[in-house]
Amino acid sequence: MTRSFRWICEATDGAARAGTLHTAHGPVQTPTFMPVGTVGTVKAMTMDAVRSTGAGIVLGNTYHLMLRPGAERVKQLGGLHRFMDWSGPILTDSGGFQVMSLGALRKLDQDGVTFRSHIDGSEHRLDPERSTAIQHALDATITMCFDECPALPAAPEAIAASMRLSMRWAARSREAFVQREGYGQFGIVQGGVEPDLRAESVKALTDIGFEGYAIGGLAVGEGQELMFATLDVTTPLMPTDAPRYLMGVGTPDDLLGSVQRGVDMFDCVMPTRAGRTARAYTERGHLNMRNARFATDSRPISPHCDCLTCTRHSRAYLHHLFRANELLGPMLLTWHNLAYYQRLMRGIRAAIVDGTLDTHANHLRAEWAAGDW
Amino acid sequence: MTRSFRWICEATDGAARAGTLHTAHGPVQTPTFMPVGTVGTVKAMTMDAVRSTGAGIVLGNTYHLMLRPGAERVKQLGGLHRFMDWSGPILTDSGGFQVMSLGALRKLDQDGVTFRSHIDGSEHRLDPERSTAIQHALDATITMCFDECPALPAAPEAIAASMRLSMRWAARSREAFVQREGYGQFGIVQGGVEPDLRAESVKALTDIGFEGYAIGGLAVGEGQELMFATLDVTTPLMPTDAPRYLMGVGTPDDLLGSVQRGVDMFDCVMPTRAGRTARAYTERGHLNMRNARFATDSRPISPHCDCLTCTRHSRAYLHHLFRANELLGPMLLTWHNLAYYQRLMRGIRAAIVDGTLDTHANHLRAEWAAGDW
Ligand SMILES: [Zn+2]
Ligand SMILES: [Zn+2]
Repeated sequence: MTRSFRWICEATDGAARAGTLHTAHGPVQTPTFMPVGTVGTVKAMTMDAVRSTGAGIVLGNTYHLMLRPGAERVKQLGGLHRFMDWSGPILTDSGGFQVMSLGALRKLDQDGVTFRSHIDGSEHRLDPERSTAIQHALDATITMCFDECPALPAAPEAIAASMRLSMRWAARSREAFVQREGYGQFGIVQGGVEPDLRAESVKALTDIGFEGYAIGGLAVGEGQELMFATLDVTTPLMPTDAPRYLMGVGTPDDLLGSVQRGVDMFDCVMPTRAGRTARAYTERGHLNMRNARFATDSRPISPHCDCLTCTRHSRAYLHHLFRANELLGPMLLTWHNLAYYQRLMRGIRAAIVDGTLDTHANHLRAEWAAGDW
Repeated sequence: MTRSFRWICEATDGAARAGTLHTAHGPVQTPTFMPVGTVGTVKAMTMDAVRSTGAGIVLGNTYHLMLRPGAERVKQLGGLHRFMDWSGPILTDSGGFQVMSLGALRKLDQDGVTFRSHIDGSEHRLDPERSTAIQHALDATITMCFDECPALPAAPEAIAASMRLSMRWAARSREAFVQREGYGQFGIVQGGVEPDLRAESVKALTDIGFEGYAIGGLAVGEGQELMFATLDVTTPLMPTDAPRYLMGVGTPDDLLGSVQRGVDMFDCVMPTRAGRTARAYTERGHLNMRNARFATDSRPISPHCDCLTCTRHSRAYLHHLFRANELLGPMLLTWHNLAYYQRLMRGIRAAIVDGTLDTHANHLRAEWAAGDW
């Protein structure tokens, strides 16, 4: 079995694609949702639990891991896979987004970003070379280019200048990336919601050449309509033989609409964060488990879910756990939410393979709108 | 297979006993440690995780469950076993201890206790009949007598009066208990550290007759020496054909010394609470996982432990999780601590069966004293 990094398209349905991403750490079926493991843990989940949901690839955060415990520390301990008990593929973001949203006293120049840690105030620097080296030290299966994320709202000129800076950084990131069999690096398309800028960004990245292409700078408050409109003018320009990753997205409905527009990979804190705030995602929309009506509800969260939570416990039990502020509440609900997200993606993939995605999508949307069983 | 509730002694070594407790919800090998599931959850653990440690019986709390979600609610939802996903035996305490330590505006009379909930200030009453009925509604395999726990320190006369009140309440608890095949009720020996009062209490309880006998009112600050001295004068007076349960105890060393004095069952929040405060119990004593020396320690917490935590993760990872305040830290460390407590009890039981408990005890104590590997 070859271990080269490649994405094989197995079926299409409209713009949607079903495929398999082959990596040094095993294959991943796409479309796929990547649970977020910010600091080397998918919050409130053991990795056995993550595996049981069917997840094929998880995400780690360069910004968080460089600050604590440190990339060299992780490397000395055998790399991120071993550190967090995940032998499958791991994608690490570059830190570009987090340094702008979490870092303090940021100083951006053409070369990189100097900032202070949000944890202890210590000074650090990230630039394309350093970010790429950190991701190498972590042993990320997929390395992301270091990019600059402008604070929004911003004028089109500012978006353009930021995008062009990110494209120069993408070239430097590629230069710094050490090619290894089965490992890959993704460029990140920027350009806000401006079609011309998105097109310019895609061209700049494909001229460099990456193993995959991400779409950044969306799901930052522009709304679903504008996000979909931007995908509509962006994905058709992207290579057809490489995976496409929409960063930081999103709700079940966002995932569905984005797959229909040709996206293959997603990550989002939504299902895990929701698990800690009592929000359950289901085939019939989301439920707030703190709601008093669940206090006597002996049904599982979802009758269609085969997760530990739904096969063993009632809604009333979940309600009780959240009311009592018990750790098991976030544990069980995060588990369920990740299981739902994975089941959603498997269903979407099966529909692409069957050539029935539109019918399936209409069914999913009708069910979400129908409300709780 | 008969489901009658009985304890069968299989071996003795000095005062120590190895046996099997047969119940309506399956057998439990003794000596046994019961993880504490206060409000229907062993904190930070799924019940699959609890089962994986080898635990045979868990504890629930009448006081907490009557206030939230309520005993009738639990009954409507199928009983505590189903509610919390534990098909094995469950012992519920009577609420006597918690109402005195947690309840507000307590008013004690000869009949029972009126108090306000520590959660919402609502007024409630507990007495022998009500406590027994609540435990019945919860479907507890083992029901505890409702007793009165004097605030310490107290004069011997106050201890005596309290013990005698508890004995009258024990008779009422027995009267209220509904006999069911495979279910049992335990009386609670009181009397502080006064040998005469303990003897009087044992006689009062055995005159009533219970399926098992607990020793209450210890591990409340009197120190290990006085606790062991009290066991030395109490357990020899207790029935030899019924299980003996030392309530709320304790450290690994407490468990060992108490088994050597004829105790069969224990419960304590120590391993679970320690799991949330970064304290790891091991064959070489306890470790504080926040300690800086663990930041680079690639070894498992214990080389002898087969728990998920020790088979998959380094001390450095645990250290990182606690430093980052990640939920997985308490989850993994609670799992390890409960696995250690169960392994400790299995080792002690095997030594009793082999007739080598003294040798084994010396070995355990020498290892604890030796410090970390
Ligand atoms: Zn579920
Ligand atoms: Zn362990």
